[in-house]
Amino acid sequence: MTSTVFDRIGLLYTGDPEREEVAGAALVVEDGRVVWTGRAGDDPGADERVDVGGRCVIPGFVDSHAHLVFAGDRTAEFTARMSGERYTAGGIRTTVEATRAATVPELAAGTAALVAEMLAQGTTTVEIKSGYGLTVEDERRCLEIARGFTDETTYLGAHVVPPDAASADDYVRTVTGEMLTACAPYARWVDVFCERGAFDADQSREILTAGVKAGLLPRVHAGQLGEGPGAMLAAELGAASADHCTHLTDADVEALASAGVVATLLPGAEFSTRSPYPDARRLLEAGVTVALATDCNPGSSFTSSMPFCVALAVREMGLTPLEAVRAATAGGAAALRRTDVGALTVGARADLVVLDAPSYVHLAYRPGVPLVLQVWKGGRRAV
Amino acid sequence: MTSTVFDRIGLLYTGDPEREEVAGAALVVEDGRVVWTGRAGDDPGADERVDVGGRCVIPGFVDSHAHLVFAGDRTAEFTARMSGERYTAGGIRTTVEATRAATVPELAAGTAALVAEMLAQGTTTVEIKSGYGLTVEDERRCLEIARGFTDETTYLGAHVVPPDAASADDYVRTVTGEMLTACAPYARWVDVFCERGAFDADQSREILTAGVKAGLLPRVHAGQLGEGPGAMLAAELGAASADHCTHLTDADVEALASAGVVATLLPGAEFSTRSPYPDARRLLEAGVTVALATDCNPGSSFTSSMPFCVALAVREMGLTPLEAVRAATAGGAAALRRTDVGALTVGARADLVVLDAPSYVHLAYRPGVPLVLQVWKGGRRAV
Ligand SMILES: [Zn+2]
Ligand SMILES: [Zn+2]
Repeated sequence: MTSTVFDRIGLLYTGDPEREEVAGAALVVEDGRVVWTGRAGDDPGADERVDVGGRCVIPGFVDSHAHLVFAGDRTAEFTARMSGERYTAGGIRTTVEATRAATVPELAAGTAALVAEMLAQGTTTVEIKSGYGLTVEDERRCLEIARGFTDETTYLGAHVVPPDAASADDYVRTVTGEMLTACAPYARWVDVFCERGAFDADQSREILTAGVKAGLLPRVHAGQLGEGPGAMLAAELGAASADHCTHLTDADVEALASAGVVATLLPGAEFSTRSPYPDARRLLEAGVTVALATDCNPGSSFTSSMPFCVALAVREMGLTPLEAVRAATAGGAAALRRTDVGALTVGARADLVVLDAPSYVHLAYRPGVPLVLQVWKGGRRAV
Repeated sequence: MTSTVFDRIGLLYTGDPEREEVAGAALVVEDGRVVWTGRAGDDPGADERVDVGGRCVIPGFVDSHAHLVFAGDRTAEFTARMSGERYTAGGIRTTVEATRAATVPELAAGTAALVAEMLAQGTTTVEIKSGYGLTVEDERRCLEIARGFTDETTYLGAHVVPPDAASADDYVRTVTGEMLTACAPYARWVDVFCERGAFDADQSREILTAGVKAGLLPRVHAGQLGEGPGAMLAAELGAASADHCTHLTDADVEALASAGVVATLLPGAEFSTRSPYPDARRLLEAGVTVALATDCNPGSSFTSSMPFCVALAVREMGLTPLEAVRAATAGGAAALRRTDVGALTVGARADLVVLDAPSYVHLAYRPGVPLVLQVWKGGRRAV
């Protein structure tokens, strides 16, 4: 097996709390895993050498919240919103219609394009949700497509009640019954949009509990448009993550902390819906683990850029550059309960990004600038 | 001479007020100029054909405000500011020290890297200021370097009073005397940082007037940190542009409108200094022409990305996507009094960008995503 040393790393962000940053570092990869990190010059040697030239190396981003299987266009809705209209979840139905009408190859091609776009921006692990099919077969095929791109697939039949459902209760029965049976083989996670206008606490509990019984792990869309029961429910059910967390009560924050639920913040959604940003500092101070993700979707956050989310988190949410990078790597891994990604410790997957900058600080210091120079996935050059 | 038709343009933003957008368009280039635009299929033919594949084509961005000739790093200052410290102009002196210590090849290499980075993000015309030398010879050599990259060079000896000046008055004498004489051959414009802590109204007037006598055209840094005399002075002297315009009185706005001074807004500076954004709508409603630029510099706005500025202008400054793209192209051209760039009308330079998107709206709809697929400068593929 060939081994590779990444040499002359100006600054290595390892994501290891014990030794989070190493200046003047090297890193050795073998068989797709990190086998050594330390000072440049001290490395044990390797078959091949990559000269990083003083640049910064970070773990590949872990984007733990994305909706990538869809068809159709919502440019006009975005333009209208930027001319003053308010965001509601209603636009989701536009995408549902287009997604149902699309063929599997069309949907797969769209997903592939977004995954490639993410990879080029340094994302080496991505979670992909269903949620734009909302029939048994449409949800199933969306998850089957998603599974072709990642192990981190999430069943989100409970994205919104489709207009063609007989009633909300009837739809919940489908989501917890026939649709779950069809989707579970392709999903690792079960998720619900727990929000006024979508699913209430009881419906959400029923959906997540059914998912857990089918072998899936729970996660929750909570507190995007207003305070609601989502965060408490996430804590009650031991969900891996509560996502959005834009509107949280003090009791919500405390519950997330006690239950060890990760708060996944999605600043792209606040950016693209002109909403107030969540206060990430408040969460960190309460002892909550914070993750950053793109929420990439055609309605409320059509960015695929984790560097952009890092810059926004620093500008708008009170995170330092270090905390933001941590949230975008180790935080995302925690939100997916993964220990093999999001950090460059010995034994971790060799998913890493070479930035065209001396420090990860530049992700916030140089907003909008494409700084991802190289991406390595499982020890192989991917970009 | 070879001619080229850009065919199957999904959406052409021409920048021509008479026919600003054409869906299903083609564009013919000959001898580095646009010679025809219209409906796809109607074109008069050309030697070569570029299939745009339904994507959007816009003029190359005109970035009319950038400080690209410098050395040194201010990452630590940025991190400190993002942890709560306030931005002052004081940090400029850090860059001045490093710039004076650097060699011409070092400075030129740094400038070249930023110009290339800008080009890759669709900027085909860039203005470059001096202002980190602040001695006769350091300003001269910075402008000579800048002139190697663009005709739009700006003498900004009056960026800040250097700490080694005997007095502010003494420094103004140098800026209007010996330094001006040394710099004028390399500059098209004269600029002054008219702000509390930098240069007051009388000093600024003296500096700009001296520049005009030496054959330079005036532009002004006005109202960045607070209300001040800059905008009024720009109107009084018929400056091409007043830049920043973050803090303007109603009288300032009226004066800019009456005098036909472009207001150049620099949202990257507000982003990176956590300052409130200017209200672009107010300016447009008063009849002021608005331009967008990056203000690229290592202290207060280290972005080189015009797409990022467009996204911010839409999110934060009340511009529609169309108005933001207009400000980043035709607006920038107006701020530089150029009629050959910033629009794709017959006779204009064939500086154009192919976006990997069906519309320019995606620059705001997909923030942070690198959407610039191809850049053509003077009819030649540059990126
Ligand atoms: Zn979501
Ligand atoms: Zn400036």
